[in-house]
Amino acid sequence: MTAPLTLYYAPGTCALATRIALLEADAPHDAVRIDFAANAQRSPAYLAINPKGRVPALATEHGVLSETPALLAYVAQRFPAARLAPLDDPFAFARMQEFHGYLAATVHVAHAHRRRGSRWADEAEAIAAMQRKVPANMAECFGVIEQHYMGSGPWVMGERYSVADGYLYTVAGWLEGDGVDIAEFPKVHAHFQRTGERPAVRQALG
Amino acid sequence: MTAPLTLYYAPGTCALATRIALLEADAPHDAVRIDFAANAQRSPAYLAINPKGRVPALATEHGVLSETPALLAYVAQRFPAARLAPLDDPFAFARMQEFHGYLAATVHVAHAHRRRGSRWADEAEAIAAMQRKVPANMAECFGVIEQHYMGSGPWVMGERYSVADGYLYTVAGWLEGDGVDIAEFPKVHAHFQRTGERPAVRQALG
Repeated sequence: MTAPLTLYYAPGTCALATRIALLEADAPHDAVRIDFAANAQRSPAYLAINPKGRVPALATEHGVLSETPALLAYVAQRFPAARLAPLDDPFAFARMQEFHGYLAATVHVAHAHRRRGSRWADEAEAIAAMQRKVPANMAECFGVIEQHYMGSGPWVMGERYSVADGYLYTVAGWLEGDGVDIAEFPKVHAHFQRTGERPAVRQALG
Repeated sequence: MTAPLTLYYAPGTCALATRIALLEADAPHDAVRIDFAANAQRSPAYLAINPKGRVPALATEHGVLSETPALLAYVAQRFPAARLAPLDDPFAFARMQEFHGYLAATVHVAHAHRRRGSRWADEAEAIAAMQRKVPANMAECFGVIEQHYMGSGPWVMGERYSVADGYLYTVAGWLEGDGVDIAEFPKVHAHFQRTGERPAVRQALG
């Protein structure tokens, strides 16, 4: 019998957030690595799984799901005993989703202009111009996170660890490559170290 | 007594999706227009409401929320009698959220490179290069939507109208300005016309 869930991922991508969530939930799943170096995310076999040609994708018995914020809420809802999201409080759930939305639509996008600039312009000079602005944009984003999304902690949602923590850990892990010193953001930095010590996170990276 | 919810919006922005959702839910709310021409979204008064300086923002009795996918799920959860989302089916809810995630983190981002290129590069030539690629990128995104997200209809989630429909309507409304003919995408086009006839949508635009 195969595991009911299969996560398609690649190292260094935002798929790490969903992998962490599945491990934190103790969810039976397979993890299938897609070889970006071989451009396997654009292969016909993978496009049949996720026509958008990106990771993560999560195959379930009902069909394939994608987009990190959707996957994180899904894992939390499907494995409620793990208490990975405030499922019974619409406002708190929306705050968590707001944070996911900011990471996905603003911070991840700012990061993507370093390596994926060809999505938005064809000329080499324009792509280089985008790359030059990535450190400043990532620093601005993490200034917003430090000031407005990191409360008294220890976790993003307060006292309780949630799927939001693995997502922040994932995106904060891009800062060094983007030319930003995480130590400029003390709350984010402490959170990154704290989260990195969790067994699920160590297993996800292993 | 003031209304319990206040939506901060600007015409032509993705805030329209939340405005439509509130009207579809028959939710008591005030709608406050932020004057983008006067750069009011960067005013101290508005930054105190939404430090990210963008719309939409939704003030509730518990605090302010932002990010369209979070707001749409919140409206659906807070007003469950309106049945604006498949709240009792984690997979269907995740599919809806996946669609919201694609609109927010890929399609809206593609669109933003036409008017907001200065977010990602400083040089005028680079900003112009981004603008040139917007029509192709928006057409590619709507090709994905047409082929993979529009089922047998009449609505995105099937037989039942959901918050996803007002969001698609909002983003599809940007195509003309982005230099793309919506008629290239027959299912999206029919959906746009169908949705535009709803009383809540007409009221939101009025």
